[in-house]
Amino acid sequence: MGKPLHFNAFVMNTTSHIQHGQWRRPDAGQTEFNDVNTWINLAKILEKAKFDAMFFADVSGLYGDTEADYDVYAHEGLQIPSNDPTVLLGALAVHTTQIGLATTSNIVQNHPFNFARQVSTLDHISNGRIAWNVVTGINENASRNYGLPALTDHTERYAWADEYIDVTYKLWEGSWDEGALLKDKKNGRYADPSKINKIYHQSKRYRVEGPHLPSPSKQRTPVLFQAGSSASGRDFAARNAEATFIIAPTPDVAKELIAETRRLAVSHGRRAEDIKFFQGLSFVIGDTEEEAREKSKHYDEFISVDGYLAHMAILDRTGRVYPKETKLKDLDTNTSKGMAEWAGKHITDREPTLEDVATLQSHSTRLEGTPEQIADQLETWQAAGVDGINVINWVIPGSFQEFADKVLPVLRARGLAQSEYSEGTLRQKLFGDGDLLNERHPAARYRGAFTQGPSNWEEADALRAKAPATV
Amino acid sequence: MGKPLHFNAFVMNTTSHIQHGQWRRPDAGQTEFNDVNTWINLAKILEKAKFDAMFFADVSGLYGDTEADYDVYAHEGLQIPSNDPTVLLGALAVHTTQIGLATTSNIVQNHPFNFARQVSTLDHISNGRIAWNVVTGINENASRNYGLPALTDHTERYAWADEYIDVTYKLWEGSWDEGALLKDKKNGRYADPSKINKIYHQSKRYRVEGPHLPSPSKQRTPVLFQAGSSASGRDFAARNAEATFIIAPTPDVAKELIAETRRLAVSHGRRAEDIKFFQGLSFVIGDTEEEAREKSKHYDEFISVDGYLAHMAILDRTGRVYPKETKLKDLDTNTSKGMAEWAGKHITDREPTLEDVATLQSHSTRLEGTPEQIADQLETWQAAGVDGINVINWVIPGSFQEFADKVLPVLRARGLAQSEYSEGTLRQKLFGDGDLLNERHPAARYRGAFTQGPSNWEEADALRAKAPATV
Repeated sequence: MGKPLHFNAFVMNTTSHIQHGQWRRPDAGQTEFNDVNTWINLAKILEKAKFDAMFFADVSGLYGDTEADYDVYAHEGLQIPSNDPTVLLGALAVHTTQIGLATTSNIVQNHPFNFARQVSTLDHISNGRIAWNVVTGINENASRNYGLPALTDHTERYAWADEYIDVTYKLWEGSWDEGALLKDKKNGRYADPSKINKIYHQSKRYRVEGPHLPSPSKQRTPVLFQAGSSASGRDFAARNAEATFIIAPTPDVAKELIAETRRLAVSHGRRAEDIKFFQGLSFVIGDTEEEAREKSKHYDEFISVDGYLAHMAILDRTGRVYPKETKLKDLDTNTSKGMAEWAGKHITDREPTLEDVATLQSHSTRLEGTPEQIADQLETWQAAGVDGINVINWVIPGSFQEFADKVLPVLRARGLAQSEYSEGTLRQKLFGDGDLLNERHPAARYRGAFTQGPSNWEEADALRAKAPATV
Repeated sequence: MGKPLHFNAFVMNTTSHIQHGQWRRPDAGQTEFNDVNTWINLAKILEKAKFDAMFFADVSGLYGDTEADYDVYAHEGLQIPSNDPTVLLGALAVHTTQIGLATTSNIVQNHPFNFARQVSTLDHISNGRIAWNVVTGINENASRNYGLPALTDHTERYAWADEYIDVTYKLWEGSWDEGALLKDKKNGRYADPSKINKIYHQSKRYRVEGPHLPSPSKQRTPVLFQAGSSASGRDFAARNAEATFIIAPTPDVAKELIAETRRLAVSHGRRAEDIKFFQGLSFVIGDTEEEAREKSKHYDEFISVDGYLAHMAILDRTGRVYPKETKLKDLDTNTSKGMAEWAGKHITDREPTLEDVATLQSHSTRLEGTPEQIADQLETWQAAGVDGINVINWVIPGSFQEFADKVLPVLRARGLAQSEYSEGTLRQKLFGDGDLLNERHPAARYRGAFTQGPSNWEEADALRAKAPATV
């Protein structure tokens, strides 16, 4: 028997998340994403199927050049309109009891003091089932929604992320010592002030006094997802992430990526297994190979070439889409050369067009076949080091229902999918090592760090001047 | 028959909100505020009783001097620990269908682009039942949690609030024209980009491009509560609020306050009835007068003198409480003179002590008597111009259950409380004039204002330079 893979539903509070054009299918319920029942219904299907988590991606603005048209995004429902995932989690938490709930929040969008409080509140509401996907990358429009003159430089963004996450770690792990909450009605002592600490955080962008307003939730720090793929991004993940998601084109590429991040994690004093890797995949499931092939063609018919090209930022300077029969070699965009090379590997009998690119993109994460064949392929991904799968839908809720009905039973028979939830918080369910971050995680150093801390800013600033490397 | 009063439950996501010390009662469920079931259960009781809304107050930091001890606040559970109300509303929205849900959010705590999106998402989730209590006042600790060197000057805070709310109005009312959402599967047109507008907002603190990411929710702008009592605060309310809450010591004082704000509203081009006034009151209900008197004494026994004094900021310079037998005339605090005068009106046989002050404070919002007597008193408040009551609890959920069981039936018999919800959004339920803000409200000027707007920042900045008073 194999070791169970983890499964997340990889969704977004919008119409067209990744597989563009599929919202036009008659059975596509994602067009009703404004209706909370769409999500409650999906959450219940996923929980019944023992998915580990429902993972909400997010953006903070439009894709593309900010001065260009956004016609294609609006037409395609491509991540606009989109709703906030964080406030949605409260609604889902009270209609489920086991499934993890992951939100995405960008460091640009919310002050860490407010964000940390919202997350602690959600972790209380859900009894310890919250995860946070830490995002630092923003498109131009997002930066201009938040008053930044232009896109912040890549390295600087990760320096900012380090500051941001440091504030949240201090609030979640260090501000309240264990046992601070007394709830002692008899003696009129609700909490013990000697165990509630101000953090006196000072860094380039943030000066935060504390204490954290909520008392500790079950997990304190939510389970941390991160998906940076640049050098700074991988380093940030290696230091901070408990789970990272990738969309690798092949198991071999995944293997390399995973090994490299695990090596980095170890170099930072963590263990290789401290980070779980989730590969994003879509599934085309047939009772026979032939049926799967037919279904795959059917999905192809709904591909919106415009949607894929817009998402991949292959647009002209005014933000408009090129004709889909445009040959790659005739394009003049930053990405067209690498794209032509990639497309050329798959299409050898003619000059690849933009339509080919969209179709290839849609196929790049597609696993096709009978449930048994899909299970075989998942074993290959697992052998490459993948711990779990981010299941990407064609339609909501149908794609998840189909995966639950057809593929999961086969995986269970092979021991590759869990049959029951284990007890406890999301972190405990994923790692089996308690509700809290392990001692190797950088946030752990803030436990108890403020108990004997400074009693005002003057002392805090003096301490920092003496030993800048410590808290 | 009278005209129905509105009723809100005036609560906070914490243990000790207003009636300090009552959490120590055996029947006090507010100690379990971390448990979402406490709130879901209360929401269901309130909805069954046809309360108009569940109103969550909030703070962004500790009370008191930031350098002083916060022992008393922790001991009393006095607004610490406390959880975020905004993310809680998602959980309550999906266990109710009619009751309004009001959150409090301070301009310091969340960027208006992010906040506006969270609120639109909640308004979608709740089908148009969200209200926002706009808060500008912050204590010292809150300002230091958000990196401000010190408390922002009062007038400056309202200038900031004007900017903040302006950004949200533009996003809620102006960014999406009516009819922008098409959901046209056949033609692959999810939305019409010509009806989705960037706002190009520029002011002292905010530069926000837009568009708003969510499509319009039923109410677009949430119902707006505000409770400023200073001159700038009243002016802000007169211009922006649809509901304001007061804690007036007598109906006569309320009458004056209400008349003044209504006059101000009219001077700003609004109508007197465009603002609803909610008075905060606690209820001591007996089947007989005698029983009510006994219950009142019982509540007195649970009064925490320390709690009231801390909430009223009557502490020594180190943040410690004075002995409760301390005479007011022996105190040296900013507020003690006015306080002594106020206490002297009620206590004439001896020098008032701090214990007297706490008791008087607890009694100042207390209506006592049989249900019929309470109904009589509520008629007096209504005659003074009050449109509704913010019901302040002793215990959760008992105080609300008791009010629903004993007082509401008597009020209904007199036509002073609704028996059924009317149809529609919270705004429609409260004003009976549609889901959206009326045309007299300042936010209405942004409707359609950006449809033919500038197409980039250069044009927007040039337009502003030409006509600074317009959008």
